[in-house]
Amino acid sequence: MSKLEQFVQNLKDQQLLLPIWFEKGALKLINQKELPHKEEILTIKKVENLAEAIRNMTIRGSGAIGIAGAWGLYLAALNSGGTREEMQRAARLLKSTRPTAVNLMKTIDEMLSGVNGVEKMPIDRMEAKLIEILERQLQFEHSLGSYGANLIDDGETVLTHCHSGALAGSGYGGRALSVIRKAYEQGKNIRVIACETRPYLQGARITAYELQKFGIPVTLITDNMSGYCMSKGMVQKVVVGSDRVAANGDLANKIGTYMHALAAKEHNIPFYTATSSHTIDFSIQGGAGIEVEFRDAQEVTSLNAQRLAPMGVEALYPSFDITPNGYLSGIITEKGVITQPYAINLQTLNRRVAH
Amino acid sequence: MSKLEQFVQNLKDQQLLLPIWFEKGALKLINQKELPHKEEILTIKKVENLAEAIRNMTIRGSGAIGIAGAWGLYLAALNSGGTREEMQRAARLLKSTRPTAVNLMKTIDEMLSGVNGVEKMPIDRMEAKLIEILERQLQFEHSLGSYGANLIDDGETVLTHCHSGALAGSGYGGRALSVIRKAYEQGKNIRVIACETRPYLQGARITAYELQKFGIPVTLITDNMSGYCMSKGMVQKVVVGSDRVAANGDLANKIGTYMHALAAKEHNIPFYTATSSHTIDFSIQGGAGIEVEFRDAQEVTSLNAQRLAPMGVEALYPSFDITPNGYLSGIITEKGVITQPYAINLQTLNRRVAH
Repeated sequence: MSKLEQFVQNLKDQQLLLPIWFEKGALKLINQKELPHKEEILTIKKVENLAEAIRNMTIRGSGAIGIAGAWGLYLAALNSGGTREEMQRAARLLKSTRPTAVNLMKTIDEMLSGVNGVEKMPIDRMEAKLIEILERQLQFEHSLGSYGANLIDDGETVLTHCHSGALAGSGYGGRALSVIRKAYEQGKNIRVIACETRPYLQGARITAYELQKFGIPVTLITDNMSGYCMSKGMVQKVVVGSDRVAANGDLANKIGTYMHALAAKEHNIPFYTATSSHTIDFSIQGGAGIEVEFRDAQEVTSLNAQRLAPMGVEALYPSFDITPNGYLSGIITEKGVITQPYAINLQTLNRRVAH
Repeated sequence: MSKLEQFVQNLKDQQLLLPIWFEKGALKLINQKELPHKEEILTIKKVENLAEAIRNMTIRGSGAIGIAGAWGLYLAALNSGGTREEMQRAARLLKSTRPTAVNLMKTIDEMLSGVNGVEKMPIDRMEAKLIEILERQLQFEHSLGSYGANLIDDGETVLTHCHSGALAGSGYGGRALSVIRKAYEQGKNIRVIACETRPYLQGARITAYELQKFGIPVTLITDNMSGYCMSKGMVQKVVVGSDRVAANGDLANKIGTYMHALAAKEHNIPFYTATSSHTIDFSIQGGAGIEVEFRDAQEVTSLNAQRLAPMGVEALYPSFDITPNGYLSGIITEKGVITQPYAINLQTLNRRVAH
């Protein structure tokens, strides 16, 4: 067994829910588009097919995509003997799938560091880099999870929105679900309320699936029920992921997050985001500077092939919303939990990371 | 043409979207379960079939059900010659379809007033009662709509939740949509944002359909987008219906209403409910006294035949939530708009109705 094979075997022994792994000379991917109806494992032998899988959401979530990029370059090296030209082509192809995915850019650059100085990338060096990246992401999830789990008390119910879990990371629990999983593993008797997350239903489809896999009790609700549940004392903490955090702590996350935050504040329920310190964008002062991406409104009017609304009706699909920092009880990162004043404390965190 | 036939013809000439009417000796119903995919008109010749249609939500909404009850007794009288025994049997059958529907009980009792004194109900007397009930419901919608329309200004966008429209009433606009329709007919350049209303999607299916029919510009959103829309200045007023109003003005309405109210308050957007003065339940002091009905959680985990979540996952379906009176800018009724202090002003309204 090579060092890499041993490493992958070791991952499998840790009860991880791997979004992507390597087996018998090929990459294996869980097709996240088919969950929870079908647990389809795709076999990918060419970097082009991996790029397509990233592009069409077969694999998704910032951590998972970063890892996929690293695996993609390793696959390209195996297939091509690691020539510089081929490595650079594979890197360009993979980067083009998600030009704004910071994690993906980072892992690809890391895998190829030093490529300009050589004709061929030595495969054992690629393996070592890959293991380093995988270990770091896994360590990130355990560390973030441990900091966050300190905030969850025995007997509590945690509400979450969208999917910020294992399949979006390296298989332990991603961001929000690492906090929940770690608290559960600490022996705390906790429950989760998962919001379905219209229109794409990541909560119903993937978060509920993962929590079932981990054996953590979960109850599914539609997004518009969180206020009711909070008003009835059914929720003690809220933990969500984040697409981006501004320098002042304002938070961009999946559409609907802001309304849970409003309800949580109304009922004095602590509201946290679990995120990477690298998600904090110091070039953006506050939420007003975050541009909200609009997606295909057909996601709102149809569900798969099923039409939900009359033909010709106009719809909107802002993909995320902004939760102002005043609604946050803290930002859980792999370096610790940041609290108010965020503008100052995030800068301190930033310096801690940079040094 | 009989007086009743003339009356029905007159209704049809008023651009009403009738949920139920009479044609060639039979009742006609729009099958609301099939909207918006199919505009299916059902023909009903027996009171048993009407009872089934009320029971299975083919016809729904408190106003429409009240009217259906009156039409049902008229049909039974036509079929049986109006014998007291048959009238009483039909009344029991129709009442049993929705034992808590106040409007249904009322119209049935009204149609049958005096039945104990006669062997047979004279058909012309049934016709006169029926016309009276239909006219009153229509007048209710126009009156409520006019009071509410005064609150909507030219150029505004009104957000609404669930379906509180023509097909739930007598065909003009029911409750919330009567306000919107009347404002539109006054020449005000208004738009509507309709929330889809998970899990049963009344907003996407029926509200959007009606607004399209009336030519009123409508944009559909998922329920979790209202906070975003409000934060971007896209909403100037909120108008929703209500299942029940307590003596202090606390409001029970379709699940999700409360979260729109929280967001509206946050952004200083006036939030109204449009309701009948008869919906105010003076036997209930406040929202805490309103029992929330739980429905089949399968509505959350599946959409028609399509499963949305993993097998075996637990879900919740509280059918409505409570919006405390502090979030309301006013209660729009057919007698006028009630504002704070609700406990006092609703009592005044009550006395006005009673005298």
